[in-house]
Amino acid sequence: MASKNLFLLAGDGIGPEAMAEVKKLIAAMNDKLGSSFATDEGLVGGCAYDAHGAAISDADMAKAMAADAVLFGAVGGPKWDAVPYEVRPEAGLLRLRKDMELFANLRPAICYPALAASSSLKQEVVEGLDILIVRELTGGVYFGEPKQIIDLGNGQKRGIDTQVYDTFEIERISGVAFELARTRKNHVTSMEKRNVMKSGVLWNEVVSQTHKARYSDVKLDHMLADAGGMQLVRWPKQFDVIVTDNLFGDMLSDIAAMLTGSIGMLPSASLGAPDPKSKKRKALYEPVHGSAPDIAGKGIANPIAMIASFAMCLRYSFGMVAEADRLEAAIAAVLDDGLRTKDISSPGMTEVGTTEMGDAIIAKF
Amino acid sequence: MASKNLFLLAGDGIGPEAMAEVKKLIAAMNDKLGSSFATDEGLVGGCAYDAHGAAISDADMAKAMAADAVLFGAVGGPKWDAVPYEVRPEAGLLRLRKDMELFANLRPAICYPALAASSSLKQEVVEGLDILIVRELTGGVYFGEPKQIIDLGNGQKRGIDTQVYDTFEIERISGVAFELARTRKNHVTSMEKRNVMKSGVLWNEVVSQTHKARYSDVKLDHMLADAGGMQLVRWPKQFDVIVTDNLFGDMLSDIAAMLTGSIGMLPSASLGAPDPKSKKRKALYEPVHGSAPDIAGKGIANPIAMIASFAMCLRYSFGMVAEADRLEAAIAAVLDDGLRTKDISSPGMTEVGTTEMGDAIIAKF
Ligand SMILES: CC(C)[C@H](C(=O)O)[C@@H](O)C(=O)O
Ligand SMILES: CC(C)[C@H](C(=O)O)[C@@H](O)C(=O)O
Repeated sequence: MASKNLFLLAGDGIGPEAMAEVKKLIAAMNDKLGSSFATDEGLVGGCAYDAHGAAISDADMAKAMAADAVLFGAVGGPKWDAVPYEVRPEAGLLRLRKDMELFANLRPAICYPALAASSSLKQEVVEGLDILIVRELTGGVYFGEPKQIIDLGNGQKRGIDTQVYDTFEIERISGVAFELARTRKNHVTSMEKRNVMKSGVLWNEVVSQTHKARYSDVKLDHMLADAGGMQLVRWPKQFDVIVTDNLFGDMLSDIAAMLTGSIGMLPSASLGAPDPKSKKRKALYEPVHGSAPDIAGKGIANPIAMIASFAMCLRYSFGMVAEADRLEAAIAAVLDDGLRTKDISSPGMTEVGTTEMGDAIIAKF
Repeated sequence: MASKNLFLLAGDGIGPEAMAEVKKLIAAMNDKLGSSFATDEGLVGGCAYDAHGAAISDADMAKAMAADAVLFGAVGGPKWDAVPYEVRPEAGLLRLRKDMELFANLRPAICYPALAASSSLKQEVVEGLDILIVRELTGGVYFGEPKQIIDLGNGQKRGIDTQVYDTFEIERISGVAFELARTRKNHVTSMEKRNVMKSGVLWNEVVSQTHKARYSDVKLDHMLADAGGMQLVRWPKQFDVIVTDNLFGDMLSDIAAMLTGSIGMLPSASLGAPDPKSKKRKALYEPVHGSAPDIAGKGIANPIAMIASFAMCLRYSFGMVAEADRLEAAIAAVLDDGLRTKDISSPGMTEVGTTEMGDAIIAKF
């Protein structure tokens, strides 16, 4: 049986600690379930900059392109706050997204029942919450040109970024959202600022056309992105799938994640288009949380988001749906048992470190 | 005594109903307190489009430019969803902001004690909340060029918007934020996406320079805008003044408003630069809520945000600080008495309509 090639980019901060738990899990799956994962590892972010002056090397980029899936930890930290813009830690992640053409970023915001009380929102507002943000990831203001700072003289500079969306980009991301909605509650809400942005006007138009042409069985709503942010805070359960652009997706998915009280728990998948022949798609899986430099190296980081990202990998890259379901159930089970890392701990619970949490999930798997 | 010239643009939806209460209040101040407000009225938004095919006429723009202050209701509604982009209702508001050079948008997010329980957030998270969002209002992606949709042929279009900020724009808005912080808790948090946007890099740099040169007595923090959105939801009381750009300000101020459970209550002020000689500044005052077409004409709209916007007008345009304080106290007092419009009603409270609410506030004033 051909092995499944995973390329691991643990990155900075708590990335390596979280990734270590996934490595144990992969080893256990190979040993006990006869899975055939092969892993290789590379550097991304600040550690890559320290090693060779770039946020990811060309050699590691080539490995990421060749892998069946990339598992990504987190990048950045105060150590690299002053490095030049072009080689800042985030540049590694952005290059991976762009060069691998990972245009579809799936960010589930799920409120684990065991954690509903730890949200800053009222329990009834978030309990049972299960929404999916589908964020466009290779376009918009993140990559549009011109993107520069111009010196105007007289002490004046001009900072410019360009938001650009083409029809085909909006079409393919909304297609992903509609397809996923069909496997869920069949409801898509598209968010933009068509009252201010021309890209928003086009976004709205293309989503509507795509809906009419191919997905008229799915319920579609449009909402202005600012109103959408408000509604996420007011009553998030009104949503099923939200589809939005790169920058609004960045803001809205972080807010949605925070609602759940489980920011240390939430995974994401970034997917490319399926190859017309092999149907394989490039993919990168990444926790929503960042590198959390303040707690790095202390053995207290929550590995659940990273492990849940691997569950998404099983589901989307390898069609191992049963295993993904079981892994997600194992996470819920250890939470039900009262195990908590420090970030999600509360009175009466059993506080554990990163490795104990990983071990407990593997044991339940 | 020269009269104080107010130009009223009630707009669409619930705008006119809310404005009617402010008109009663102005009449009462002229009658009983000997104030000398003179008012004139114009059209903006959908009603202006219906009347003369533009979201605001040149004649009304001239009146707005000449007035001591503009009071603005709300614009838009489904009736005008299909009108051309250039004359959509919002275009009237955007032209007012741009032509009057109202670069500083002040959006307080205050949690009225009487309403703390009606937030979707836990009471302890929002009780006593008092933050001020200072949003840049005449720059960024709202007005940058190119802003267009290009037909690429083959069924492909390209939507483009341009985010542009110059040093002087960032300098003057951060100056406003620092000045206001000095009258509050002396703490400014600046938000941008410097890890992705060049305008964010410049924003960060100029805010830091302005701080160092002129406001080093104020505490300054920088936060990425996505993290800022999260932190607003997690623990909003960590903030005092937030300064951010036009688009992030749009999102973040709406989210901050929703936290308070008082979206129908929140005012805003949009200010220009003080005239070097007269020290007068152009100004527009506007509720944060929109036109709420679903409840328009029913007499149930909450007029408090509009009345509180007039309180900001007294404070910032006319230096009538005592009157502004008294008006804000009158609003708090009617809430303490249990009076509620439908949007903020809860069991045990006395539900009243728009005019009763206005009358009650005027009676307490
Ligand atoms: C690290 C940063 C470049 C990134 C983004 O802005 O996309 C992050 O915030 C995210 O949401 O994945
Ligand atoms: C009506 C619209 C153009 C406006 C904006 O986007 O600025 C509104 O959302 C606001 O926040 O005042």
